Amino acid sequence: MTKLFVLVVISTAAILPQTLAQEPKISEASQECIDCHASLHPGIVADWKASRHSRVTPAEGMLVKKNARRISAKSVPDELKDVVVGCAECHKLRGDKHADTFDHLEHKIHVVVSPADCAVCHPVERDEFEQNIMSRAYTNLAHNAVYNVLENALIGDIQNKNGKLHYGAASDLTKETGCYHCHGTKLEFKGMETRDHDLIGEAEFPVIKGWPNQGVGRINLDGSVGACSACHTRHDFSIEMARKPHTCRECHVGPDVPAYKVYMASKHGNIYAAKGSSWNYTNVPWTVGADFSAPTCATCHMSLLANTDGEIVAERTHRMNDRLPWRIFGLPYAHPHPVSPDTTIIKNSDGLQLPTDFAGNFAKDFLIGPEERAERAAEMQKVCSACHDSSWTKGFWKRFEHEIEKTNEKTAVATEILLRAWNLGIADKANPFDEPIERKWMDVWLFHANSVRFSAAMGGGGDYSVFADGYYQMHQKIAELHKEVETEASKAQVSTEEEKK
Amino acid sequence: MTKLFVLVVISTAAILPQTLAQEPKISEASQECIDCHASLHPGIVADWKASRHSRVTPAEGMLVKKNARRISAKSVPDELKDVVVGCAECHKLRGDKHADTFDHLEHKIHVVVSPADCAVCHPVERDEFEQNIMSRAYTNLAHNAVYNVLENALIGDIQNKNGKLHYGAASDLTKETGCYHCHGTKLEFKGMETRDHDLIGEAEFPVIKGWPNQGVGRINLDGSVGACSACHTRHDFSIEMARKPHTCRECHVGPDVPAYKVYMASKHGNIYAAKGSSWNYTNVPWTVGADFSAPTCATCHMSLLANTDGEIVAERTHRMNDRLPWRIFGLPYAHPHPVSPDTTIIKNSDGLQLPTDFAGNFAKDFLIGPEERAERAAEMQKVCSACHDSSWTKGFWKRFEHEIEKTNEKTAVATEILLRAWNLGIADKANPFDEPIERKWMDVWLFHANSVRFSAAMGGGGDYSVFADGYYQMHQKIAELHKEVETEASKAQVSTEEEKK
Amino acid sequence: MTKLFVLVVISTAAILPQTLAQEPKISEASQECIDCHASLHPGIVADWKASRHSRVTPAEGMLVKKNARRISAKSVPDELKDVVVGCAECHKLRGDKHADTFDHLEHKIHVVVSPADCAVCHPVERDEFEQNIMSRAYTNLAHNAVYNVLENALIGDIQNKNGKLHYGAASDLTKETGCYHCHGTKLEFKGMETRDHDLIGEAEFPVIKGWPNQGVGRINLDGSVGACSACHTRHDFSIEMARKPHTCRECHVGPDVPAYKVYMASKHGNIYAAKGSSWNYTNVPWTVGADFSAPTCATCHMSLLANTDGEIVAERTHRMNDRLPWRIFGLPYAHPHPVSPDTTIIKNSDGLQLPTDFAGNFAKDFLIGPEERAERAAEMQKVCSACHDSSWTKGFWKRFEHEIEKTNEKTAVATEILLRAWNLGIADKANPFDEPIERKWMDVWLFHANSVRFSAAMGGGGDYSVFADGYYQMHQKIAELHKEVETEASKAQVSTEEEKK
Repeated sequence: MTKLFVLVVISTAAILPQTLAQEPKISEASQECIDCHASLHPGIVADWKASRHSRVTPAEGMLVKKNARRISAKSVPDELKDVVVGCAECHKLRGDKHADTFDHLEHKIHVVVSPADCAVCHPVERDEFEQNIMSRAYTNLAHNAVYNVLENALIGDIQNKNGKLHYGAASDLTKETGCYHCHGTKLEFKGMETRDHDLIGEAEFPVIKGWPNQGVGRINLDGSVGACSACHTRHDFSIEMARKPHTCRECHVGPDVPAYKVYMASKHGNIYAAKGSSWNYTNVPWTVGADFSAPTCATCHMSLLANTDGEIVAERTHRMNDRLPWRIFGLPYAHPHPVSPDTTIIKNSDGLQLPTDFAGNFAKDFLIGPEERAERAAEMQKVCSACHDSSWTKGFWKRFEHEIEKTNEKTAVATEILLRAWNLGIADKANPFDEPIERKWMDVWLFHANSVRFSAAMGGGGDYSVFADGYYQMHQKIAELHKEVETEASKAQVSTEEEKK
Repeated sequence: MTKLFVLVVISTAAILPQTLAQEPKISEASQECIDCHASLHPGIVADWKASRHSRVTPAEGMLVKKNARRISAKSVPDELKDVVVGCAECHKLRGDKHADTFDHLEHKIHVVVSPADCAVCHPVERDEFEQNIMSRAYTNLAHNAVYNVLENALIGDIQNKNGKLHYGAASDLTKETGCYHCHGTKLEFKGMETRDHDLIGEAEFPVIKGWPNQGVGRINLDGSVGACSACHTRHDFSIEMARKPHTCRECHVGPDVPAYKVYMASKHGNIYAAKGSSWNYTNVPWTVGADFSAPTCATCHMSLLANTDGEIVAERTHRMNDRLPWRIFGLPYAHPHPVSPDTTIIKNSDGLQLPTDFAGNFAKDFLIGPEERAERAAEMQKVCSACHDSSWTKGFWKRFEHEIEKTNEKTAVATEILLRAWNLGIADKANPFDEPIERKWMDVWLFHANSVRFSAAMGGGGDYSVFADGYYQMHQKIAELHKEVETEASKAQVSTEEEKK
Repeated sequence: MTKLFVLVVISTAAILPQTLAQEPKISEASQECIDCHASLHPGIVADWKASRHSRVTPAEGMLVKKNARRISAKSVPDELKDVVVGCAECHKLRGDKHADTFDHLEHKIHVVVSPADCAVCHPVERDEFEQNIMSRAYTNLAHNAVYNVLENALIGDIQNKNGKLHYGAASDLTKETGCYHCHGTKLEFKGMETRDHDLIGEAEFPVIKGWPNQGVGRINLDGSVGACSACHTRHDFSIEMARKPHTCRECHVGPDVPAYKVYMASKHGNIYAAKGSSWNYTNVPWTVGADFSAPTCATCHMSLLANTDGEIVAERTHRMNDRLPWRIFGLPYAHPHPVSPDTTIIKNSDGLQLPTDFAGNFAKDFLIGPEERAERAAEMQKVCSACHDSSWTKGFWKRFEHEIEKTNEKTAVATEILLRAWNLGIADKANPFDEPIERKWMDVWLFHANSVRFSAAMGGGGDYSVFADGYYQMHQKIAELHKEVETEASKAQVSTEEEKK
């Protein structure tokens, strides 16, 4: 339709060293897998064929020079070195560690590949991710007494009896579809079952509770935590997908964590949407200005960045908190980042496993201090400086920290109203999350204060700060909370008066 | 900016058989149309020129071998065979059947091309679509007594009189912008009008009530139902567009049917967003692993799929319910798919045209039974198996059906509360959709139960199951409903007590 | 993965006249900037290098023939003519006019480049934009007494005292992150500060209140209004980005102005999403059918459009109201477009700076009349006619204006309820935006009536008309408003009755 000249474009798979043009060295075991599975599950095999794993052997990967190197292991076991990373190389790895290892035709394989398997070639990334709060997303939710009560109120079974709603535990399957879809499930090996298969007849396969799942904090059958496939989608495992914002959207899209929506409505997201199709997402290091011209989520939070002179702008990290002084996800207040990725150890002034108390005081002993915050802010601002001068960055950051303060102030206003409701017996704090008034209080900090903070952090403000789940709704709900409580309070007084009569 | 090698990509129009490089054989009549309209409406003509219709004659199309063939007619009328499918071929077709056929310069043409016109070459698709519940989207809404009341409460005119709000019928134009934009309008020929045209002077043109419209259940001027252009956008009619999820978004984006939003936030949607620009969307059959590596909406619901050996994975269908055991759109409960696409014939235990009654009992005689459900589930799971082993698919499906059950349970809790409100006279069931309490009850099943089910079905869960219009809001509204009704109920008792005094 | 033939596409930067292949003529001053900043801020410099500014001198740009010409100045100062438009050409321009001009190494530069700087080459666009209501987005908000009260209620500081919530002024920083992020801030030069810089040691830099900001109505340090970079993103300033809808999304995404969401869910948005990656976004004029096959926001509202014969379909305008008879953003009612971009001069029948009064009467003297509306409608419909015949366009437009009328009717119903609440003392109209009942009234017109109108205007209807923040929620909130007021009213009567007893 349009007259178009020249060409250009993409296909990251095409950008591989010349030397790889030769046939990939697939192990015999992997070839056996492919012989059947290419017909049975063509999607998986095709994905793998498009991947770097299918073309580069670890030995070849280890020839790459420092900053461009993707394998962080100092050495790789001999038997893996000279074949590409195929089915068998991962699904037969460390077989004795996996509870789901079983006999499949001639092979002992396991279904669930874990970060500990990936760490054979990528140990630094695994180690960093273990220190990333995301790796504890299962544990931090499941082993927190406050969150357990919350979970029941949100997704538990409901019984309507004697004029009251009772919230029981959620069913396992609802948990797996709900919170633990993103947080990760705890996988459990439940024995073997026989299936009758078209091709191989009757055979035994493992039954795994909590499967399938790719949540970031999954508890694996070898005891390891996390799932690299959460972001490095199977079986391509591409750095390209992990660097694009759509991967983050899988979990960060709702009103509680509207990162994707805020980003896409920001100037950065605009540039990505308009021009991102011509960027290079596979180069390592990732060069600002040469490979891309606006940051994605990964750019600011994780990636190894260089300037056009090849100088490193920011180091790669899979411990994403490295560049995060603040945790802007309110619980119920935004707060300095926890020191340990394990937040179940936190005790606030009320003895609860929460990073702040109801008045907004930080559980200081468990949160990073001002020096560490300053270092992390500086680390993040290095990324900003690749495109912005210091007056821009300072102005942005000042507003961001101001909005943390302001939204915490608003949360305090809402919380005071709730406390008054509890004190007056208008609501019952036995379960602080189940009554309408309490749920409205949750809206204030979980949706609206968070939206404002995400908007300030990732977009510098805009519609998500005000009208799209931001201040507008925050003030609206505070006003409603206040009205409800004051109306009940004045009724209660009337009743008292009347009783006196 | 980036150094990029080699090329690749796109322009589906370019991928046409060699033999078509020669000039397309445009009929004289169509050429006459183009001679003026290319200047008047360049967008339409350009779209058509980019289409397969503009390049391939039916005779050429019929040479294509079985699975790759796009024309399902066994024969095509002689006068159409050897010219490409241009303006005149469609707009002059079956002229005597169309109420809007009129004299336009030398030609008798009709404005609205219908599926019955398309069926001259594509009869199988038309026949299937007539059995698709979507083809009855106009009738099923307009000829259902319950929905008529609902429609008034949602988009009707409002009068505020004597302390009450009265909901009258919606205006025709609001209906056309509202519900019937997607459901399809009933087109009516309203005579001719004279327009003074720059190029041809005064001329007569038909006046058509309900036009323009491209809704899936449109009632056409030849009495046929549906609009192929709903998904195969005029005048390109490309299979590519129909296979991309943006087409489905046109109608499936709101909180009632958040399919697009759920899909885009799923792993599948992530892969599509990150890698889909290099896929082939025009090959027939559509080969998993070769043409694409993650499903779009069409993949799971409609397309003819093959594996990389050329074996058929799933048959094409325009009767989308073929792969759908359940209708997860609650009315008010999710239920087995209706047997007939015409749902106006359904009678539930209360005598209403609804697939379930208020207690959640299915109107069994009108819904498919367990055997048919099992067959359809198996048909859908064939698609899953192209990329997933059976333990993955089984785990996914088990959770999906569990969420149907759980959300129906929650809908039952909300409905019991509503019934109590009706019984106590707190609300008036004369119109079950107009009072605040009733509207909140609608939120529960129409928005939140649906969101949870769509999320489980198309994303395996995640944010749309919990925080983004899912369980969080469902439980919040159930709690509010309960509080309101119990508060009124206790007041009513007080009043009764007081009256007794 | 897929077998793909031939090539095609993209990289607009590549499509430059042959003659430009030679080295760009960068001024000495700009080269000095680049020498350091290419390493310091590689992103900015790379963006600029990808821009037309970096390759074409004004003299070359002025050789281009009429409709294709991008420079609207009749002449350009000699010193700028024969060098490309680099750092120094803009940041040193009109130095004596800018309050932030300072000595930076050997140069006097200013940080904030303004539309008055851009106007040296692009005066027509600047002049038009000054007549665009968007250019007054700061002033129209900040200097309107009603909006000041509204602003406090939405983003101001809250104090909870004596059983009442008090809304004070918002902090400057919250304003900048909130409303003024899009509306534009008022920049103020606050003196110089010393920064210690790695490369140049201690140096003085200006401190600018309200910076950074790229809002459309920014008040600049030379007294000019607006920010071209709002849409022509720095430092690429590409017409491509401005023509894509993602730019508009930056400000038009929330429930108050859901333009982007409505567009993307429309047939037009569907076509853009499915096929837009192969369109040409840089040609001037922009040819319907040749360059693109469905409109983006810019197409309908701004761009210079031609048909495939090279005839002009619509003239370019940066005074976007040129094609807009109605302002569909309700305040609280939709209304004819204001005559002046300065809306602070409006007085309605109540003496308020609002385009309508509470009963919906237009402040006629300040709004365009029927003739001007007819002309603007005709101008917009020229764009429609590039792809649609007149029956389509007429049908669409009739529904659009009908929805303006209907949503104004519904706003009137809600407003009457609010007036009753004020009259009965149920709410206090001193601040008409702070109480729950008033905030619900705002939802009706600001979110839901707007959504319906945007949906009718940009999508012809659909989910955003009904379920996605449209009629469904509008009627729900009207019903709730009504219930709350009538309940309070009947209580008040009871009290009165009781008092009488």
